[in-house]
Amino acid sequence: MKAVILNIGDEVLEGKVINTNGTFLASNLCKLGINPTKIITVGDDHSHLQAEIKNFLASDNELLITTGGLGPTHDDFTKEVLFTTLGLEMVINEQAKSLLTEYFGVEYAQCNLKQAYFPKEAIIIPNRLGTADGCIVEKDGKIFIVLVGPPFEMNPMVIDTVIPYLRKKTTNDFLIKEYIVMGLGESVIEDLLQPLYQRYPSVKIAPYASLGKIRYQLTASKANQEEFLAACNSFMALLNHHIISSENEEIEEKVVQELKRNQWKISLGESCTGGMLASRIVNVSGASEVFSEGFITYSNQAKRKYLKVSESTLEKFGAVSEETVREMVLGLFALTNSEVCVAVSGIAGPTGGTPTKPVGLVYYAIKINDDITVYHSIFKGGREQIRVRACLRILFDVYQKIKAF
Amino acid sequence: MKAVILNIGDEVLEGKVINTNGTFLASNLCKLGINPTKIITVGDDHSHLQAEIKNFLASDNELLITTGGLGPTHDDFTKEVLFTTLGLEMVINEQAKSLLTEYFGVEYAQCNLKQAYFPKEAIIIPNRLGTADGCIVEKDGKIFIVLVGPPFEMNPMVIDTVIPYLRKKTTNDFLIKEYIVMGLGESVIEDLLQPLYQRYPSVKIAPYASLGKIRYQLTASKANQEEFLAACNSFMALLNHHIISSENEEIEEKVVQELKRNQWKISLGESCTGGMLASRIVNVSGASEVFSEGFITYSNQAKRKYLKVSESTLEKFGAVSEETVREMVLGLFALTNSEVCVAVSGIAGPTGGTPTKPVGLVYYAIKINDDITVYHSIFKGGREQIRVRACLRILFDVYQKIKAF
Repeated sequence: MKAVILNIGDEVLEGKVINTNGTFLASNLCKLGINPTKIITVGDDHSHLQAEIKNFLASDNELLITTGGLGPTHDDFTKEVLFTTLGLEMVINEQAKSLLTEYFGVEYAQCNLKQAYFPKEAIIIPNRLGTADGCIVEKDGKIFIVLVGPPFEMNPMVIDTVIPYLRKKTTNDFLIKEYIVMGLGESVIEDLLQPLYQRYPSVKIAPYASLGKIRYQLTASKANQEEFLAACNSFMALLNHHIISSENEEIEEKVVQELKRNQWKISLGESCTGGMLASRIVNVSGASEVFSEGFITYSNQAKRKYLKVSESTLEKFGAVSEETVREMVLGLFALTNSEVCVAVSGIAGPTGGTPTKPVGLVYYAIKINDDITVYHSIFKGGREQIRVRACLRILFDVYQKIKAF
Repeated sequence: MKAVILNIGDEVLEGKVINTNGTFLASNLCKLGINPTKIITVGDDHSHLQAEIKNFLASDNELLITTGGLGPTHDDFTKEVLFTTLGLEMVINEQAKSLLTEYFGVEYAQCNLKQAYFPKEAIIIPNRLGTADGCIVEKDGKIFIVLVGPPFEMNPMVIDTVIPYLRKKTTNDFLIKEYIVMGLGESVIEDLLQPLYQRYPSVKIAPYASLGKIRYQLTASKANQEEFLAACNSFMALLNHHIISSENEEIEEKVVQELKRNQWKISLGESCTGGMLASRIVNVSGASEVFSEGFITYSNQAKRKYLKVSESTLEKFGAVSEETVREMVLGLFALTNSEVCVAVSGIAGPTGGTPTKPVGLVYYAIKINDDITVYHSIFKGGREQIRVRACLRILFDVYQKIKAF
């Protein structure tokens, strides 16, 4: 089934409120195997609203869901415009009227009474948390679902009434699998995946990139189950250890899991990341089992004082160098005795870059027991992106290294 | 000028990602006096995309802004569909090609080259943070602006290139003033603002709440300038020191400014915030002038070892107590000698709460020269929200305290 979501309201159209309703409805439709083809926001404007309803009627979409415009004021006219366009008369609905009485007690403002008017064939969607009920109307092979605007009122209406109604109308025949991929750029992966696109044409492979990681989703209809499984297996074989999870997990959760499994502690010595690495580890509930202490040695003086980096190393090679992070990680181990020690130093920018050491250059050392590896990489972006990308890459390398140990 | 915003991408259409691009663009258009009439999301679907472009061409809207579909993959075809529909041929753009070379160095994947193709009349919108540039094309009295999908890449493109371009195309007759308010809840502020709503009916006062801070926007037409200025003055008088900025500044920027003004250094001793405070300070460019070192003492042992909190204090009062953060801040000063020292210890949850010390309870001590103040507060939300809210509140209090010193 194909669906259109129509969000109505000046506050959304003018960018004062983020359209979470569209997102909420779209993701719930997808879970039911219904395909949204379009999400539209229009303002509290009669003619724009009517134009979109007419577009919908002329299209091959079968389901229209509207949100907003059900309030008691003169700005609220979604039902009026929709049902006039459909040629359906509205009458007082006794169920809606009694819900109104229940909500207000005996007395309510006259303007609220219009909220109890619906076409006589409508199924009422009770609103537990407000005065505006919604409704479902079927006409000429199409389904119209009318919902309120405020998300905290709308969401329960969807969960309590809309989803059970739609579940009866659909058969979900989709297969979905997700993978979180790290440590490779989107264009590199794209080149790697070219053969898969050709070999498994009935499987859709879609990347959703975010800072430092990419979520891949493979989907196919149940009729193509065999091809789908083959595509998943090829995908996993191809990207191998770059797949950190097939759930929506963060890399720091994986690191904490691995540390727990080994009963190891991690200690951190951070310069350019400035506590961001530690903060990510601490954000994992139960981090106290694996993390006790971290040092932010932002100045050269702090690197010398706490992590015992030698003055001559800093002078000769600079703070952003293999030699410095190596001494940082050794100093960190001397202080903490942790099985896993990580030290990082880089140039987050926007100033401080040179031709040989550009903005974005980050050196980091990972020490696991007696093994020390020093990495360096140039991360792209502004100051915050460079720091976030560096953190995610370091956590990815820590995860790989612990697993391989 | 009337505008349509067209967001392209399966991840938005399927509700996997909230459409913040639509909101960001709409609010910026409104600030320029441009009216969005419709925000549309379509998927990575050739025919749906083309249908919306044709709808736009047939309408009286004059500006179309697209986001998404500029990547290197086979799923990305916004430019191809748009410019084919407009009858404009695309050729290699030398500016875009050299930006690509700059981004990658000499070598880049072949699939990236298509990102350098544009109509020859296009104005390039450089993407500082990624490989896909955008463009502006004017044709037959309409303006087409093509932008990337990832918000962290798109937002700077809008600020650097699109807004200056559009400003020349429009005459704005709106007055706008923004204030960032911290340290008070939205409903408390709402009660305070009631008289202003009545006194200045022609001024629109709208709150946009986010975690730990609220942005207020006051708008009026230029015809009501006098009332607008009076409303701004009343607003500032009423919320006073809770207004941290009338620009879009972060509280850590204000803290760094105040520290620089005093030529002071700040040191941090963090438990539950786990480096997040330091990371926010370090995210301010030029932080090295005011910040040298921080300690994440997550375990009791680390609090004892580095910050010299006494064993008896930890035993008698617990790690989350006035006494502990007081000793932490003193230990921190003994180590660093910084003019401003901040120590924090709390229960971020979800476990670890007790009836007397619930999840969300955070103690923090701020020491400026010889003055020590200990605060405590209970922050709401999940683990991450509690930590973010605590950081913002601590930074707000540090800022107030330095200013008052």
